Amino acid sequence: MSKQIWPTLTMGTCYYPEHWDESLWLSDLRRMKEAGISVIRIGEFAWNKFEPREGEFTFDFFDRFLDLCRQEGMQVIFGTPTATPPAWLTEKYPEVLNAFIDGTLMRHGLRKHHNYTSPKYLELCARVVTQIARHLGRHPAIVGWQIDNELNCECNTFYAESDSVAFRVFLREKYGTLEELNRSWGTVFWNQDYTGWDQVYVPRPTANGSQNPHMELDYIRFVSHSARRFCAMQAEILRQHIGEGVYITTNGLFGHLDNHAMTRESLDVYTYDSYPNFAFPLDQAFNHSALNDRSWSRSLIETRSVCPHFGIMEQQSGSNGWHSRMEGPMPRPGQLTLWSIQSIAHGADFVSYFRWRTCNFSTEMYWHGILNYDNRDNRRLQEVRNVGRLMKQLAPVAGADSKAAFALVRDYDNQWDGEIDMWHRRIQQASEQAVFEASQYTHTPYDMLYLQPETTLGDLTRYPVLIYPHAEILTPERSDLLKAYVEQGGTLIIGCRTGQKDPDGHCVMQPMPGLLAGITGTQVEDFTFCSPAEPPVTAIWNGETLDTPVFNDILTATPGAKVLARYASSFYAGEAALVENPVGKGRVLHLGSAFSVSNLRQLLAYTGVLSPWQDIIHLPEGLELTAREKDGRTFLFLLNYRSEAQSFTLLKSAASLIHGDLPAGQHTLPAYGFEVIEI
Amino acid sequence: MSKQIWPTLTMGTCYYPEHWDESLWLSDLRRMKEAGISVIRIGEFAWNKFEPREGEFTFDFFDRFLDLCRQEGMQVIFGTPTATPPAWLTEKYPEVLNAFIDGTLMRHGLRKHHNYTSPKYLELCARVVTQIARHLGRHPAIVGWQIDNELNCECNTFYAESDSVAFRVFLREKYGTLEELNRSWGTVFWNQDYTGWDQVYVPRPTANGSQNPHMELDYIRFVSHSARRFCAMQAEILRQHIGEGVYITTNGLFGHLDNHAMTRESLDVYTYDSYPNFAFPLDQAFNHSALNDRSWSRSLIETRSVCPHFGIMEQQSGSNGWHSRMEGPMPRPGQLTLWSIQSIAHGADFVSYFRWRTCNFSTEMYWHGILNYDNRDNRRLQEVRNVGRLMKQLAPVAGADSKAAFALVRDYDNQWDGEIDMWHRRIQQASEQAVFEASQYTHTPYDMLYLQPETTLGDLTRYPVLIYPHAEILTPERSDLLKAYVEQGGTLIIGCRTGQKDPDGHCVMQPMPGLLAGITGTQVEDFTFCSPAEPPVTAIWNGETLDTPVFNDILTATPGAKVLARYASSFYAGEAALVENPVGKGRVLHLGSAFSVSNLRQLLAYTGVLSPWQDIIHLPEGLELTAREKDGRTFLFLLNYRSEAQSFTLLKSAASLIHGDLPAGQHTLPAYGFEVIEI
Amino acid sequence: MSKQIWPTLTMGTCYYPEHWDESLWLSDLRRMKEAGISVIRIGEFAWNKFEPREGEFTFDFFDRFLDLCRQEGMQVIFGTPTATPPAWLTEKYPEVLNAFIDGTLMRHGLRKHHNYTSPKYLELCARVVTQIARHLGRHPAIVGWQIDNELNCECNTFYAESDSVAFRVFLREKYGTLEELNRSWGTVFWNQDYTGWDQVYVPRPTANGSQNPHMELDYIRFVSHSARRFCAMQAEILRQHIGEGVYITTNGLFGHLDNHAMTRESLDVYTYDSYPNFAFPLDQAFNHSALNDRSWSRSLIETRSVCPHFGIMEQQSGSNGWHSRMEGPMPRPGQLTLWSIQSIAHGADFVSYFRWRTCNFSTEMYWHGILNYDNRDNRRLQEVRNVGRLMKQLAPVAGADSKAAFALVRDYDNQWDGEIDMWHRRIQQASEQAVFEASQYTHTPYDMLYLQPETTLGDLTRYPVLIYPHAEILTPERSDLLKAYVEQGGTLIIGCRTGQKDPDGHCVMQPMPGLLAGITGTQVEDFTFCSPAEPPVTAIWNGETLDTPVFNDILTATPGAKVLARYASSFYAGEAALVENPVGKGRVLHLGSAFSVSNLRQLLAYTGVLSPWQDIIHLPEGLELTAREKDGRTFLFLLNYRSEAQSFTLLKSAASLIHGDLPAGQHTLPAYGFEVIEI
Repeated sequence: MSKQIWPTLTMGTCYYPEHWDESLWLSDLRRMKEAGISVIRIGEFAWNKFEPREGEFTFDFFDRFLDLCRQEGMQVIFGTPTATPPAWLTEKYPEVLNAFIDGTLMRHGLRKHHNYTSPKYLELCARVVTQIARHLGRHPAIVGWQIDNELNCECNTFYAESDSVAFRVFLREKYGTLEELNRSWGTVFWNQDYTGWDQVYVPRPTANGSQNPHMELDYIRFVSHSARRFCAMQAEILRQHIGEGVYITTNGLFGHLDNHAMTRESLDVYTYDSYPNFAFPLDQAFNHSALNDRSWSRSLIETRSVCPHFGIMEQQSGSNGWHSRMEGPMPRPGQLTLWSIQSIAHGADFVSYFRWRTCNFSTEMYWHGILNYDNRDNRRLQEVRNVGRLMKQLAPVAGADSKAAFALVRDYDNQWDGEIDMWHRRIQQASEQAVFEASQYTHTPYDMLYLQPETTLGDLTRYPVLIYPHAEILTPERSDLLKAYVEQGGTLIIGCRTGQKDPDGHCVMQPMPGLLAGITGTQVEDFTFCSPAEPPVTAIWNGETLDTPVFNDILTATPGAKVLARYASSFYAGEAALVENPVGKGRVLHLGSAFSVSNLRQLLAYTGVLSPWQDIIHLPEGLELTAREKDGRTFLFLLNYRSEAQSFTLLKSAASLIHGDLPAGQHTLPAYGFEVIEI
Repeated sequence: MSKQIWPTLTMGTCYYPEHWDESLWLSDLRRMKEAGISVIRIGEFAWNKFEPREGEFTFDFFDRFLDLCRQEGMQVIFGTPTATPPAWLTEKYPEVLNAFIDGTLMRHGLRKHHNYTSPKYLELCARVVTQIARHLGRHPAIVGWQIDNELNCECNTFYAESDSVAFRVFLREKYGTLEELNRSWGTVFWNQDYTGWDQVYVPRPTANGSQNPHMELDYIRFVSHSARRFCAMQAEILRQHIGEGVYITTNGLFGHLDNHAMTRESLDVYTYDSYPNFAFPLDQAFNHSALNDRSWSRSLIETRSVCPHFGIMEQQSGSNGWHSRMEGPMPRPGQLTLWSIQSIAHGADFVSYFRWRTCNFSTEMYWHGILNYDNRDNRRLQEVRNVGRLMKQLAPVAGADSKAAFALVRDYDNQWDGEIDMWHRRIQQASEQAVFEASQYTHTPYDMLYLQPETTLGDLTRYPVLIYPHAEILTPERSDLLKAYVEQGGTLIIGCRTGQKDPDGHCVMQPMPGLLAGITGTQVEDFTFCSPAEPPVTAIWNGETLDTPVFNDILTATPGAKVLARYASSFYAGEAALVENPVGKGRVLHLGSAFSVSNLRQLLAYTGVLSPWQDIIHLPEGLELTAREKDGRTFLFLLNYRSEAQSFTLLKSAASLIHGDLPAGQHTLPAYGFEVIEI
Repeated sequence: MSKQIWPTLTMGTCYYPEHWDESLWLSDLRRMKEAGISVIRIGEFAWNKFEPREGEFTFDFFDRFLDLCRQEGMQVIFGTPTATPPAWLTEKYPEVLNAFIDGTLMRHGLRKHHNYTSPKYLELCARVVTQIARHLGRHPAIVGWQIDNELNCECNTFYAESDSVAFRVFLREKYGTLEELNRSWGTVFWNQDYTGWDQVYVPRPTANGSQNPHMELDYIRFVSHSARRFCAMQAEILRQHIGEGVYITTNGLFGHLDNHAMTRESLDVYTYDSYPNFAFPLDQAFNHSALNDRSWSRSLIETRSVCPHFGIMEQQSGSNGWHSRMEGPMPRPGQLTLWSIQSIAHGADFVSYFRWRTCNFSTEMYWHGILNYDNRDNRRLQEVRNVGRLMKQLAPVAGADSKAAFALVRDYDNQWDGEIDMWHRRIQQASEQAVFEASQYTHTPYDMLYLQPETTLGDLTRYPVLIYPHAEILTPERSDLLKAYVEQGGTLIIGCRTGQKDPDGHCVMQPMPGLLAGITGTQVEDFTFCSPAEPPVTAIWNGETLDTPVFNDILTATPGAKVLARYASSFYAGEAALVENPVGKGRVLHLGSAFSVSNLRQLLAYTGVLSPWQDIIHLPEGLELTAREKDGRTFLFLLNYRSEAQSFTLLKSAASLIHGDLPAGQHTLPAYGFEVIEI
């Protein structure tokens, strides 16, 4: 997972030789090279170029192109074409199509209209991937392979008939018996018991669209399982044919998919597709006060949790847009560069632009690439050239680890439960957004830490503080790990509704915080959503106001635990809102509510991890700060997403990787500017 | 219909023995009894506990539980389980399922996914109900039976194939010939004539979703007919097997169902499910200025019109919520009690809480009961205990009739026409809301009076004033009844668009008010929706402004009738807006518009029924007042729905059933407080 | 196309003899005649009156009615009944039904639920039209025929199975080979290539609803083709049977239909259905500041482009409304007259009211006609009588041409591309709305000019100025025509994104403005939607602010071209925003953005066509002015849509066709008033 694929910062682009007259190929490759691009990603979607008719394979087209790449010294990442089955395939075998919940099939004409479970699709995908891998696996121009394209993009629900068949297999493996499935799904409620496996289906239409929540949770697990299996099937084929040192990846960060497990099982490296310009839509409400494009840092943090040294397979280079949706302004001068540095600041060693030249037809004809339709040199190509130069100056950063002050703890059980359970979702979304914003405004970098079967205590002890906002679902394994973390000296911060559920999604018949009660020193006596009929409820902590938004657990502290804050209003005024409990060398802080930017500032300060670089640099909230470190060297990235200049103050002199020595004192970042300093 | 089921105020709860480990049963029953609960409702939804496989019946489970109830002295209302067909049933016989209008079947996984018309479902329901009734019909613990659960809940439209078959039967019975159906449905318009019965269907998809309105009206009548027949079929079976004095009921107040006829035909008593906390949603816009939970009184008034001495089968005891929708705050301390008293204040003699303990799994896991998942005693159980004590103090109220100052007249033809006809709906909804609010703010209690085939003049003459806001559909029978009412001394108030239609929903070819023209002394010359391009139109009545909102009929008065108010603006300024016509010993007041709180204050004052208790008590608008009377004793209920205290003033001393003697002068009700005084 | 059907201004109404008791026929016809109505439109929708059962034809009903018309001297326009297939037909042949995109059929119960492509429907329509035409074609009462009713109303998308079959035929004719279709549709993108014609379908459900844009464009062309073929098939039958001088028309102005080609191919005259009261809805947001009912002038201008001397087949006479949607206030006194004159002011010589008497049943029972259900004389009939009198006073106007100061250029390629391409749509809608509003406020009448294969230079040179706002799609033919127009002395004004695409909807691989670059003297260097994150961007023109809204092309001027205005902000501040290029005797003005009312005022003034009547009359923005001219006489129509009086000033005396001589000076139009003066 921490394999280092790119020894130096590397620049790429996505190219579609099949979209252009072959007479353009040579000049395109040479102009790329001239701009500093050394890798191109090709081939994904191009099934018909290999198998134009069922069972008839041909390789001429890409052989021609790849030989040209070899000649021109261009490295290639080759994508398997399974995201876009041909028309001849879906017309002959409609069972390979994905369906809407009512059974209506998703037809040819877009992409990702297939399912992952029909034996016929798996067979045909295996065949075409085998053919391609056998033929191209050892082509010298190819340095890596991308499996499919953006797994679970367009659609991450699957309701084909083959999905019900595969779901039953998945459930049989998980539960063994229908009795156990009935227990797990609580089917005694509303008489839902199953007496035959054939009665079990993926979600289908119901009177008001609602589904059994435990079935839904298993269904998302099943979707993730199917996608992972689909990816693993391809990886296995590829590994039989590709050369030593050639890596396997896939791109994206999509829902209903355990990206961590998929990466562990099948990939050498994980890549993300970063489109921060989605923050400036014309066709949706635009919020000037939000973090806008700076919010993409949150996805980069999540990507980093999957793969510390990741790449950007698709980095935005022009306006995003389909003919049917998404109207984006053109990136302002400097934004292309800024967003590229944003990726590097969060851990990317590879940045590949989508796409070399804007496609002049079909759905994505407004998804602008570096070049416009007219193929003239333009300001965006100038910026790409400049990023190439900057990458050389930033060379020491390659392979550096990100440096975080705390970690936000997640697990897929709770992420997915938060998706299907709106009581869970409301607090989960509020608190995770607050953690990101508080981190950004206070320049307190954080990592995301997914608790997985493979997670070790060592993965936790890298952080002095863990925030696990609303682990409604707890397991003994995760609870034990957290207990060990606290005992060895860690600080664990949790919020309301922790420990409410078991992994089936059942509410446990014991007081919250359930399995964590042994270390929190608390018990929840009563609880309520903050009523819309009341003013916001807050608490008092050492004479100061503490936000307690969204939901309130009314806590009691067990002996030895200390009530830090008490609610100040509603019917539970005076009851405990925040309790601290010492455990071993560490402690647990239990907050009765969701998190906010404000209460996180207080909690991060109280736990001593707020603003770790404040002795070195002072920044306004409007600048982002990230840190990467390697071999004892630490690099701070400062990024200005605003259209006006912003200043920062160095408390002592430092070295900029771009501008050389910076004296102590005030410095200015221009609009969309950035700085990288070594401290 | 006025059978008295509960000789004293009675407290119950809903219990699901199948949801819990049997080891909990005994303590649950004993804790209930200790809290004052003497009746539980069980069994609805539990089909599989009786027929786990087709045709295999077993009774062990409920025998065990019911014997325990008998042992512990707990009375039981037993629900037939037909609201949740088993998976084995719907998988084998998909023809029993309800469908969406496009034919997509509503699948297993929720409840009420069946139709009422497929012969197979009717056969299987009859069989399981017969089996249960035969086995349990004379069990000594069972005091009543509930048929199904919330008929027409989740969905009150039915589009299965069997519905079209049954609709044709219904229409043949109604019309005899296609010629008559074509006439009634106005099929000559747009060439819709039917030339064979097989061409007739329940509504199906059309180009823009609109349907023939006369067909739609018959369709709602058909849905009501189907649900009533389904209920009657079960009642007939039950009556063959249950003991003397054991009552039959069902719960709910749902659409597309003539609850009055159903109760008359099949039930001994009607029960309502009261969830006032729906007024405080997080997942919808919340309106601080509305009547909020106090609005549930309107449903209680409607319930009272179905059954004067009704029960509450499900009284809210905790937050409402599904995992997939509805986020409710926990009831504030006092609200559980307040809402219970609200039910009693409007006529309930039985209050049964939903549910004993919150289910810790499946769709309704956030539909909190009295107890939380953790089963500890809590503040809500304390409130239930207190309600038990209060019921003893309120004992004299049991069986008392509600005491209203006027009645709002309704009939199902107009209620349903108002649903499918948006011109009708807009005035109907505005005026009915205004009647409720005016009654609440002025402390002028009212009843709803449904005009039905069985309604007699005596049912009308109980009220000095009747408001029949917008009887677009008039029938000779209803017109004659109203004429007789007026002639004997009653005051009838009507609004715009009265008499526009016949029972087919055709507009009559005569001036409004059509069949009532003989007693109104008016004719409508012209009419218009109040234009959004003009300021609100009002009228002048004795120098004061009279609201004339939404729609304006321009009236002319016949000789003998008196124009009370004239419009003050728009192109009909100076024309008659309100006309009074003396008829016999009574009179008719014809208002040309919809009703508002303001114009109702004026009309109620003019007709002498405003604020009937104002010589005894003065209250702010924020308190609700209801009255019940029995054996010459009158009880006034005062209810405070607000989170702050409110005061009232007694003009003379009175006796509180709770606090003993209350002297004349000012008294205070605390937040969520109430008072019951005898005058 | 410029055939003159009505030698004098003519008044009609729509009548449905089948909706009424025959005893009403005679009095209805006589009352119509008395009111000045000389023509009625009947028969559309009445299929069952001719063919009550498959293949059984009868003519008694309409023979009776038409003979009465002849007797009473009433002229008749007879509609073919193909918009409403009978129930017996659609039940037996469901393949004739239209379908939703997911294949769900649109069922009996509304209208226009059929498709245009199933052989069975075409066969049955041809048969019934042949039967009717053969029987009634030479009936002396019939002066004209209406084909179907409002083609493409209710629904202008067609997804029946027969549509896919017909679409393939259409595409084979257009492309010949699949290779060419694949090229045109850009199917190499996302591997969409077709290898068999059977793989091609009309749009079907896709993962997120998006479709291949080039397919969509061809699909709209196909829908238009199908509707035109359906119309032509009926016209051909009618022409075989109808008498000399009897005209053929159809009514409406609906989407996905080349009304110009249809009229040219099949019709003698085109009629429009004008319902300005749609501007005052209760069931939608109402915007007081918009042009409201005055906006209907825009549709009349478009109608005029189809057919200079057109009729109004359905002119609003009462509130619009269905039971299921649309709540309209009753037209205020004067509005019926005003809207009738609005039609005449824009070129109508025939005004026929919808409908004589409001239907007292079915879907349109609130679509009020002249008379109400009660059949009494009313104020609306009085207004109709008065319009009859006014038409006599306006007799000189009959057959006069409209007189415009400039033309808005359109073509169907761009209209339809603007529908499927939201980047195109946003600028197209903004600019076309701005042209209409600027014209209205400045009293600068304009025509719409559709560039069609038949369009000649002479059609263009009638206008000194053409505005072709955003011709994204250019063709050599249209570009050449515009070049010739400019060279001979015309002024062409274009906006951003001109020349971006070819007729397939592909973006061309050359700089904008593409095919027009030869005459614009410009090249587009960069472009962007105006960012929602920036304040509005404007330009400076001679020291004044010039709006440059929505989208900005950054222009460069070639030698000889003159930069008139430069952007004032954003990253392209100082770059050219408006360029003027002299070409031959004319010039091209290229604006880099969309149009606004403000920048159009400046451009119209600069090009010398603003407010052409300002030397004769001064009017406030709130009055509309139109001009018609004939035989050297010019008539100005002044219309007041407001509920208050407005004044205008004559700079010299003039003659009113209504009020005789008007001296120079100020005159007042009452609310909803109008004036027609000859100058």
